[in-house]
Amino acid sequence: MTGVTTMKKPSLLFRQLFEKESSTYTYLLADMAHPDRPAVMVDPVDRTVERDVAIVQQLGLKLLYVMNTHVHADHITGTGLLKKKIPGVKSAISRASDAKADVKLDAGEKVYFGNLYLEVRPTPGHTKGCVTYVTGEGADQPSPRMAFTGDALLIRGCGRTDFQGGDASQLYKSVHSQIFSLPLDTLLYPAHDYKGHTVTTVEEELLHNPRLSKDEEEFKRIMQNLGLAYPKMIDVAVPANMVCGIQDPVAISAV
Amino acid sequence: MTGVTTMKKPSLLFRQLFEKESSTYTYLLADMAHPDRPAVMVDPVDRTVERDVAIVQQLGLKLLYVMNTHVHADHITGTGLLKKKIPGVKSAISRASDAKADVKLDAGEKVYFGNLYLEVRPTPGHTKGCVTYVTGEGADQPSPRMAFTGDALLIRGCGRTDFQGGDASQLYKSVHSQIFSLPLDTLLYPAHDYKGHTVTTVEEELLHNPRLSKDEEEFKRIMQNLGLAYPKMIDVAVPANMVCGIQDPVAISAV
Repeated sequence: MTGVTTMKKPSLLFRQLFEKESSTYTYLLADMAHPDRPAVMVDPVDRTVERDVAIVQQLGLKLLYVMNTHVHADHITGTGLLKKKIPGVKSAISRASDAKADVKLDAGEKVYFGNLYLEVRPTPGHTKGCVTYVTGEGADQPSPRMAFTGDALLIRGCGRTDFQGGDASQLYKSVHSQIFSLPLDTLLYPAHDYKGHTVTTVEEELLHNPRLSKDEEEFKRIMQNLGLAYPKMIDVAVPANMVCGIQDPVAISAV
Repeated sequence: MTGVTTMKKPSLLFRQLFEKESSTYTYLLADMAHPDRPAVMVDPVDRTVERDVAIVQQLGLKLLYVMNTHVHADHITGTGLLKKKIPGVKSAISRASDAKADVKLDAGEKVYFGNLYLEVRPTPGHTKGCVTYVTGEGADQPSPRMAFTGDALLIRGCGRTDFQGGDASQLYKSVHSQIFSLPLDTLLYPAHDYKGHTVTTVEEELLHNPRLSKDEEEFKRIMQNLGLAYPKMIDVAVPANMVCGIQDPVAISAV
């Protein structure tokens, strides 16, 4: 050591939360160095909204945005319920998703919570409006960086490309240009995991992802031959999620 | 900033892994700055051993120790299977547990993996041999500190105290003297969570744990009145876990 370090105490509070039925991860990030403790939540599930409200309240956070990575087909988002239960919360999703939300996000946009932010990176291919949210770059932002990849990249896998405007070639290009181009130690947090993994890194997936570490032609062959069943929740979840999870504001007002 | 910082790159690789059936967390820690990438695993489950072996192999880790926080009553440990599948691995558990293992750990002992270590803190009360493993103290150790609390402290809860030598008064003293005495920002990782939480902190549990934030008398009343059912796995799991999860080395050798 040549001198006393002057690094500020990291201000990020980070929580990964799991919903068992759909194996969905919800993420909570807050700037604890800011007096308001402003926070964002990524990909909440309707079934776990009570838990998510409790943690926001217990930690004294001011939830600004509930952000979805995409219009989910396997569960109903908790976004609408969170807006009902926590006044002032704004919903956010990509403009390209064509879904209803308070804030429509464009490529490259920065969503600030206190002095921290998430950058919006377009990663279509699983759905046409999929985005990846990435923590900021710079000395005052979390290190290593963290990326919330939705279903574009899963740990040792990826989302299917046969519904909702999915396109294998587009997904391959999205992941390689927008996610694998991040620093090797970037922590990657997906929207789901079915084997109990919680996190991976760019370096790990470049080496060990059985689909995305291949070349584009092989990736397309793999995705064409998955032989997956029709998504059991899709006909309920997609229409609901196009409007933040709440289709009938009158009926839900009693919740 | 008054100067260039000279902090070394953090060398800890950390993975939290989940087993859905018993809602058990397994933890993997490795020193990536050491050429051997030496690693330890805490509380593996028999059902997820294939996954755990794969991650150790993919990341090129040298697994030194498989450590249990206690003799589990709700699942069978993966320790014995891991010893079969990864040559050279040593099992470790507290001496106070009276369980069979290669290494019997005493209070205050440090278990090194490369330049990092876990400190053994006795936290009896859920079982008589429960320990909490805590990452090291000092500039070259992970910051904030991390504690693997087993069932002594759960997120907003704690393990039951009515079996296996459990004792509510002892558990209360254990948690307050050995866990709540750590720095407030210490990350607490339990052996289980049933609501999808993954981590908490000393500060959070001091404020919000509905049992352990109370005084000792109230805690004992709460624990006496839980009215829990007989643990369904206990008669299978405890005898197996007393011998690292493998009761019959001959029968298991074909695995």
